Amino acid sequence: MLRVVVLGSGAGGGVPQWNCNCEVCTRARRGDGSVTARSQSSIAVSADGENWCIFNCSPDIRQQIADNAILWPKPGQHRHTPISSVVVTNADVDHIAGLLILREKQGFDLYATGTVLDVLVENPIFNVLDGDYVERRPIVHDQPCEVGPGITIEPFLVPGKVALFNEERMMAEQQSLHIGDESENTIGLEVTSAGGESLFYIPGCAAMTDGLAQRLKGAALVLFDGTVWLDNEMVSQKLGAKTGQRMGHMSMAGEAGSMAAFAGLDVARKVFIHINNSNHVLIEGSHERQQANDNGWEIAFDGMEIEL
Amino acid sequence: MLRVVVLGSGAGGGVPQWNCNCEVCTRARRGDGSVTARSQSSIAVSADGENWCIFNCSPDIRQQIADNAILWPKPGQHRHTPISSVVVTNADVDHIAGLLILREKQGFDLYATGTVLDVLVENPIFNVLDGDYVERRPIVHDQPCEVGPGITIEPFLVPGKVALFNEERMMAEQQSLHIGDESENTIGLEVTSAGGESLFYIPGCAAMTDGLAQRLKGAALVLFDGTVWLDNEMVSQKLGAKTGQRMGHMSMAGEAGSMAAFAGLDVARKVFIHINNSNHVLIEGSHERQQANDNGWEIAFDGMEIEL
Repeated sequence: MLRVVVLGSGAGGGVPQWNCNCEVCTRARRGDGSVTARSQSSIAVSADGENWCIFNCSPDIRQQIADNAILWPKPGQHRHTPISSVVVTNADVDHIAGLLILREKQGFDLYATGTVLDVLVENPIFNVLDGDYVERRPIVHDQPCEVGPGITIEPFLVPGKVALFNEERMMAEQQSLHIGDESENTIGLEVTSAGGESLFYIPGCAAMTDGLAQRLKGAALVLFDGTVWLDNEMVSQKLGAKTGQRMGHMSMAGEAGSMAAFAGLDVARKVFIHINNSNHVLIEGSHERQQANDNGWEIAFDGMEIEL
Repeated sequence: MLRVVVLGSGAGGGVPQWNCNCEVCTRARRGDGSVTARSQSSIAVSADGENWCIFNCSPDIRQQIADNAILWPKPGQHRHTPISSVVVTNADVDHIAGLLILREKQGFDLYATGTVLDVLVENPIFNVLDGDYVERRPIVHDQPCEVGPGITIEPFLVPGKVALFNEERMMAEQQSLHIGDESENTIGLEVTSAGGESLFYIPGCAAMTDGLAQRLKGAALVLFDGTVWLDNEMVSQKLGAKTGQRMGHMSMAGEAGSMAAFAGLDVARKVFIHINNSNHVLIEGSHERQQANDNGWEIAFDGMEIEL
């Protein structure tokens, strides 16, 4: 068995975003049911229903734990957590800031690439995670690794980019910013249970490569980067200057988009996750929602449960 | 006019705390009304009801903004916030981690002591706050400073300590950890409106000094460090090894406690804030709650509003 609970289905900033008056955020605040509020990007996975691995740790993790009883401490010990490990796929704020919440002398294992673990070292605030309790374990692409009872991950590199807050330093060091490179900055994961069920979790991906397409072919479940519908939607909605590509995310729609890229891959269940507030697929009844559904995609929501 | 809204009345970790089975957390999860859930430490203050200064920026700020319509962006602009400034009283995670949420190219002013601003520089993750939009402004103790329309603060040093995540480095640098020293690591604030109304905000304070007592005498409103009831309650409840003093907080009860210290100060309205999950004053009907009330103290809750 492999059980997945979506803790946060939104991208960085969530829905509504704190300072945003876009169509989606306005509807979410209005509370008319046409857009459901979404917290920031994280899923929980278990192979036994008792021990949970958290994939990405968003700043909303405190509320996400409070909202999901599966993650409450079991009675009988003064301190406890069913969270046995945390796996991080990149060093973006929405994926690492929640680690600052998981303090209080609680043991768990923290898995990330060496590159991402270096980012934590470069930011001493993450020393709130006491090294006597939290083991930081580097993972290496294409090397399977057990991350919890009955749960193995195989990390793989996907096209992405360095975290936003390190961009400026890279420029200062006269390095050019290679967006869309495959590097340890951004990984996808195949998550497999001891029983053999398996899913793919890829919340950030700048392009579909031949290698990635090959890997995903025939998969039972893929949770995939649903940040933007159109590459330039942030710009056209006057929400920001960046395209999806510039942020390291491929769009859903369009010839180079994920819906087209998945068309021949024979994936049994396809779920968009890490969905930005600018993306009108979040509006119930929108033509974007209809088109995604028509292409066989589900739109993740907070609390969504999937069992394999 | 000076309007205060308590965004988060809890201490670091909030109530319930993610991995805690203490009496207070258990009751909060049970939802029987005997303990109200509390998010992490922050207040909003306005002198005009339009522009708001946030004092301390907790990891829960996204939810706190969503829960308080006064902080929603005003319609008419693509991006907007009524938050004109953020003032930080120390570099603890519960007071600075929320800054990571206030990104998205939004202008506001960030006020803290040079010591606390240095902590942000030492952690490049805070570069998500784009310097083209967010002005970092050092404040100096005992020097009044305007931080928003009609709002002036006067910062003052209070007994405290360096942030937890910097303790280890201090030890490594062979410095001893001076808990209870007055330094730029921890400040209290007098907040005054153009109309002359004024309040004190002191969410962390390790001891009542003569100077502080003198300053607070006759105040209209003091929001004060309510972290622990008894200095050793974390230890006696087996929740941790640290005393209140070790964490830089004076207890409410006892001869050296805040209730005794305030007894002669003639403060018109006294409110405990930054209340830890270990503190039984959070339990409705508890003898701790009764005793605090009998001593003229109110217990802050999320959404509490006070107008001067």
